[in-house]
Amino acid sequence: METAHEPPGYVCPFCERLAGRSDAIGSVEDIVRRDEHAAAFVSPRWWPDNRGHVIVIPAGHYENLYSIPADAYAAVGDMVREVAVAIRETYGCDGVSTRQHNEPAGNQDVWHLHVHVFPRYEGDRLYESSPLPGWASFDDRQVYAKRLRAYFTSSSGSSTGAR
Amino acid sequence: METAHEPPGYVCPFCERLAGRSDAIGSVEDIVRRDEHAAAFVSPRWWPDNRGHVIVIPAGHYENLYSIPADAYAAVGDMVREVAVAIRETYGCDGVSTRQHNEPAGNQDVWHLHVHVFPRYEGDRLYESSPLPGWASFDDRQVYAKRLRAYFTSSSGSSTGAR
Repeated sequence: METAHEPPGYVCPFCERLAGRSDAIGSVEDIVRRDEHAAAFVSPRWWPDNRGHVIVIPAGHYENLYSIPADAYAAVGDMVREVAVAIRETYGCDGVSTRQHNEPAGNQDVWHLHVHVFPRYEGDRLYESSPLPGWASFDDRQVYAKRLRAYFTSSSGSSTGAR
Repeated sequence: METAHEPPGYVCPFCERLAGRSDAIGSVEDIVRRDEHAAAFVSPRWWPDNRGHVIVIPAGHYENLYSIPADAYAAVGDMVREVAVAIRETYGCDGVSTRQHNEPAGNQDVWHLHVHVFPRYEGDRLYESSPLPGWASFDDRQVYAKRLRAYFTSSSGSSTGAR
């Protein structure tokens, strides 16, 4: 069964970011947390009532949930937990939800596994709404990136401790 | 900051299932995989074009992503990976996606952390569609539960090995 969709010669935008390269869509300054195994950055694609959502990725390039090794996915999960708490503490939101997509039929469009962590607000209609056209500006992304970096700098970054 | 929403005296339907009790909505026979730390069962709530999706839960009762310990969430992640592969192998779907909700504003309505693992099909419009009214029947759920149990019985249940 063929479940890989990455085209030959693909330049992975997430690996570019981790390698320290910024581009027209995203900047290394969007990264709000990073360790040896995973990283988190403010997404450049925004939903109208869930601005500043965060994408968590493994440091290694794995296309999807079927192919990522257990350890790498566990590291992503650890950072998702930490980011969820940080968003809840700093955005003034009323909840958090996550989603993760595999293959084009599953809404995947970047071929490096990633988990979306959304701030949620009463009546935000996340599932019924489409993303805003284009990309959030650097300055708009930095509003949220700075909040999260400040949170992680001032706290252990985990409400429940490391594994 | 108050982020817990479980009412006093709450009878958790997922803990009931793990304790071996079935009810009008779900059955212990919906469980397709279980170990000391986590369990997976076919959801009784179905989306019109994503039937038979699976819910993965920690064995321990934790309300949400903010409160679950790292180890318990890692065990959930392991099972999500395994279930994603099993669904992709046995449902005839074109992808898989996951989502996880925290607090009422984040679409949570059962107060035991759970991850939805959906089979995805070209044009299924998962995000734009509402769940079907009522609950899937026992017989309808068993169509998918039997497929997944057979898969897990005949395989290691993991494409990438245990941690």
